Amino acid sequence: MIHQAEHDALRRALEIAAHPAVALGPNPRVGCVLLGTDGRVIAEGYHRGAGTAHAEVDALARAGAAGAAGPTSTASTVGATAVVTLEPCAHTGRTGPCTQALIDAGVRRVVIGRRDPNAVAAGGVEVLRAAGVEVETDVPAELAVEAAALNRGWEHGLRHARPLVTAKLALTLDGRVAATDGSSRWITGSAAREQVHCLRARCDVVLVGAGTARADRPALTARRTDGTLHPRQPLRAVMGLRRIPDLPTQAPAVPAVHLRTHDPAEALADLHARGRRHVLLEGGPTLIAAFLAAGGVDELIVHLAPKLLGAGPSAVGSLGIGTIADALAFDLVETTLLTSPDGRTDVQLTLRPPHA
Amino acid sequence: MIHQAEHDALRRALEIAAHPAVALGPNPRVGCVLLGTDGRVIAEGYHRGAGTAHAEVDALARAGAAGAAGPTSTASTVGATAVVTLEPCAHTGRTGPCTQALIDAGVRRVVIGRRDPNAVAAGGVEVLRAAGVEVETDVPAELAVEAAALNRGWEHGLRHARPLVTAKLALTLDGRVAATDGSSRWITGSAAREQVHCLRARCDVVLVGAGTARADRPALTARRTDGTLHPRQPLRAVMGLRRIPDLPTQAPAVPAVHLRTHDPAEALADLHARGRRHVLLEGGPTLIAAFLAAGGVDELIVHLAPKLLGAGPSAVGSLGIGTIADALAFDLVETTLLTSPDGRTDVQLTLRPPHA
Repeated sequence: MIHQAEHDALRRALEIAAHPAVALGPNPRVGCVLLGTDGRVIAEGYHRGAGTAHAEVDALARAGAAGAAGPTSTASTVGATAVVTLEPCAHTGRTGPCTQALIDAGVRRVVIGRRDPNAVAAGGVEVLRAAGVEVETDVPAELAVEAAALNRGWEHGLRHARPLVTAKLALTLDGRVAATDGSSRWITGSAAREQVHCLRARCDVVLVGAGTARADRPALTARRTDGTLHPRQPLRAVMGLRRIPDLPTQAPAVPAVHLRTHDPAEALADLHARGRRHVLLEGGPTLIAAFLAAGGVDELIVHLAPKLLGAGPSAVGSLGIGTIADALAFDLVETTLLTSPDGRTDVQLTLRPPHA
Repeated sequence: MIHQAEHDALRRALEIAAHPAVALGPNPRVGCVLLGTDGRVIAEGYHRGAGTAHAEVDALARAGAAGAAGPTSTASTVGATAVVTLEPCAHTGRTGPCTQALIDAGVRRVVIGRRDPNAVAAGGVEVLRAAGVEVETDVPAELAVEAAALNRGWEHGLRHARPLVTAKLALTLDGRVAATDGSSRWITGSAAREQVHCLRARCDVVLVGAGTARADRPALTARRTDGTLHPRQPLRAVMGLRRIPDLPTQAPAVPAVHLRTHDPAEALADLHARGRRHVLLEGGPTLIAAFLAAGGVDELIVHLAPKLLGAGPSAVGSLGIGTIADALAFDLVETTLLTSPDGRTDVQLTLRPPHA
């Protein structure tokens, strides 16, 4: 088990790892907090993306800089505890192995939020222990869950060689995404729409079909309630063979790409090659159906408005299912009520395919 | 406020009022518990339906019988407290006024769970007070809510001169009630289906359209998980102009009627005239749409299965709504998870029209 100071340090490390200036992508997000022998924080560090210093090295550098200004110089890291969100790497990539940096700095103990699922980089625990460093991986469950969630897309990419796909549906009780005249603004209340912008800021791609791009001209940016842009913006992607209109732009310009395919696997391979690891699929019904039919949806977030339309386009296009026994079943993971300031409440359901 | 003994007595009175042998219908369900001057229960009574003794009179009669067997004779009710779920009536209907019976029995104090919303019978509180009886109507909120719920259909009938209508929908996330081949067994898990049988036992009519009766041949009885019938069975009603097949029968035979109309108002008037006060509308889509369009749905219970079909009949037929601003909006009253023994979880949403 870990001490209270280490618990606090791990929570802080998780927080700085998720710094909004850090892009999601092919590298994991990692935070590191160095504690002195008295349990006080010596320095913090985090990884800022491919090609930059790893979190441990960043923290050690800051400890050195801090130490140089004070009376103890870099000796402050001797005997220190390093609290890191992810197992320190034992391999030399664009940077040297973090395990060696920790050992060289005289770190006595390392607390690890999550083991590295990446076979290439793993083995840090063993290297550290072989060098006589004490390693603790038994952290409280809620912090372990957070450490896993921090790099969900990245871990999914390692296991499946394609980005994680979250599909979002906003629909009425009777499964309509719009009325017969095509109007859909707004099916859900402001709290649900705000939630969608948070979702966009947590993903690194927002993907829609060409039909939706043409019909709705969606901005697909992640915006705050005051209309300003979130510091982290997803890549905006439109998929389909036909010509698509330019998406509305906002300053500073948010990148947009056109994926010229109808095949979900091809689109995901393209996005993966671009270093993208978490796709938010926002419609329309045909694209959602294509991804579902191809087994390409890892998570479904449904915003259910307590309304009935009785007619209008359905949320999901044909899946080629003819009988009830073949229905696509999901596990219900979470149910949340989204209540808007005007008192309207929508229901948010989070679902995953069985055994996902 | 009321004392602990009165609190317990009111809870007990609510329980016996809801005795399953008592039919819902044109009379309210009422329970009464008589407490002696020492706070102990002297007798209990409840109303068994039109033409039978009211709860207060039933309890007084039992107190008399009990007293006759003991040393104190009927004097046991002198100075007693009567705890009743509904304001004692002050009028002479098929039975004499309960207020007079309580006064004659020497009851000193009356605790009332809910004021009588029936203008004809109300005024009991004033009559009792005029006769020097202490009356307490300030009961804890949770018991007041229960006392109101006990006769929801009856109260609705008094206010609107038609039965209360609860519409039940069982559908997939994309609003389908069946697959394209018509198969719908089972969209929801066993816990949700069990809940439907409980609903049927709490209503006094189960109503379906002729199309559903022909296609599904539903039994429409309220059954326990072992397949046996609940002690209270709703009237089974099929609505439509075309000939309908006989519904499956079970012993003892549960009554069934054919309402030869397409007009919800006409059907409800017919059922009201038959003394029915709470209709459970179980489909199909055309009938649900007709009731919704006519403003004839007072409560919506949605069983949402975490599944997608992509095609198949929709839960609700055309409502004549063309644009999103005209969608029928509901207030979400309650969200419950229904988890079946096999681990499947459906979501139950309870909704009401705004200001219902």
